Amino acid sequence: MAESVPRTFLITGCNRGIGLELVKQLLAKPNPPEKVFATCRSPGTSQSQELINLAAKHPNLSVIKLETTDPVSVAEAMKEVEKQLKGHGLNVLINNAGILQESSLESVDEKDLLNVFTTNVVGPMLVTKAFLPLLKKAAQENPQGEMNWTRAAMINMSSVGSSIEKTSETFLWWPLLSYRCSKAALNMLTRCQALGYKKDGILCTAIHPGWVQTDLGGPKAPLTVDQSVSGMLQVFCNLTETQNGILVDWEGKTIPW
Amino acid sequence: MAESVPRTFLITGCNRGIGLELVKQLLAKPNPPEKVFATCRSPGTSQSQELINLAAKHPNLSVIKLETTDPVSVAEAMKEVEKQLKGHGLNVLINNAGILQESSLESVDEKDLLNVFTTNVVGPMLVTKAFLPLLKKAAQENPQGEMNWTRAAMINMSSVGSSIEKTSETFLWWPLLSYRCSKAALNMLTRCQALGYKKDGILCTAIHPGWVQTDLGGPKAPLTVDQSVSGMLQVFCNLTETQNGILVDWEGKTIPW
Repeated sequence: MAESVPRTFLITGCNRGIGLELVKQLLAKPNPPEKVFATCRSPGTSQSQELINLAAKHPNLSVIKLETTDPVSVAEAMKEVEKQLKGHGLNVLINNAGILQESSLESVDEKDLLNVFTTNVVGPMLVTKAFLPLLKKAAQENPQGEMNWTRAAMINMSSVGSSIEKTSETFLWWPLLSYRCSKAALNMLTRCQALGYKKDGILCTAIHPGWVQTDLGGPKAPLTVDQSVSGMLQVFCNLTETQNGILVDWEGKTIPW
Repeated sequence: MAESVPRTFLITGCNRGIGLELVKQLLAKPNPPEKVFATCRSPGTSQSQELINLAAKHPNLSVIKLETTDPVSVAEAMKEVEKQLKGHGLNVLINNAGILQESSLESVDEKDLLNVFTTNVVGPMLVTKAFLPLLKKAAQENPQGEMNWTRAAMINMSSVGSSIEKTSETFLWWPLLSYRCSKAALNMLTRCQALGYKKDGILCTAIHPGWVQTDLGGPKAPLTVDQSVSGMLQVFCNLTETQNGILVDWEGKTIPW
């Protein structure tokens, strides 16, 4: 039996890396979603060519322009998605867009901290807040359902680098100070969203994709983007209320805060 | 025997609340510090009158103008403190200045998140980075010493509200979303500072002052500012390497991340 796949997705940061691979693997399922909204900042440029090519072959893929840190852009994207959903809800929102900058105790400055925090925390907050009515609508389409991703889920792309507990394992060789601070804050946001949106039937989880061979993870990473995304999709598929408001990795293991 | 008190302190946000009380209790010790630098944004205004009056009576208290989020102001304050220290180091830096705004999943916006993050995370980062040479100098004045506050310590004022683990206990009645996100990020910063500055002999700890009757904590809080500060000073006095990079409360108990 094919695993159950939600009807509708919105994924941010889809022009490359993990976002693009999530889109590809969802479209390649034997029972693909009815609609995948793949967002990126600049759909018209060469940086998004692979995504645009994919959309030409898959009518269930919509490429949406979205600058996650700009409330006006977020509102416009929401209107377009709402129109295309024709009264239906959005089952899954994946806040994947994020940045990483080299940042140490010596190099960190206010611009570094604020820039990374804006993309990695303010962006997911703005996007989730805007699309919340559509997630609620999806949950209400199945009012007696259990919490899982075929009903309604919001997933924030975090990192093991967000774990304050585990910082000592990696800090001295890879400080990533601004990234770590932003992802710790994102974990807190996820936990608060999980507590606040539970009454609406929306499952909220943070995930660590592993250290992946992407522009962000670099070529030395041990995981291919294919391995990471296959693992994460399996984890998403098995999410229950038990995983509401926690941080899990791409193999489903819980990571301490 | 009187407990050992460090020679020199710098405390931010001293015009009221916990900062002001820390200054008062340190000055009232039987063996007070040789120098306490108490900073506030506007030493010339009525908001700082109590601090100014205190300085008139205590020659070992210097009131220093410092806007913690402004790198220029931080650099000027550093120069002034360095001059007054006359070649000596700074034993203890307490990053006390912070803000709290009402903030829920419904009300939060980008200004709220960024404003609170700037004061509660960027500020402590800028201040610690600027005063680091003076903390290092203090540690080097006692190069064989153990890590403790009479040698060199940096304390970040955090909160139990920073604990992602404990968020479920309080979130639904007091969401404080932007504050929680900022303090989770501050905990990460503290952990990184502890790991990075250990080689320099500087102890770094985050502390939860309790829920205190201040402008920030409100009148319903169970603790007086006197109780909280007495407790914290006792905790600071007993800090050892074991508390490097953790979050403790005003009674010395460890709080999970």
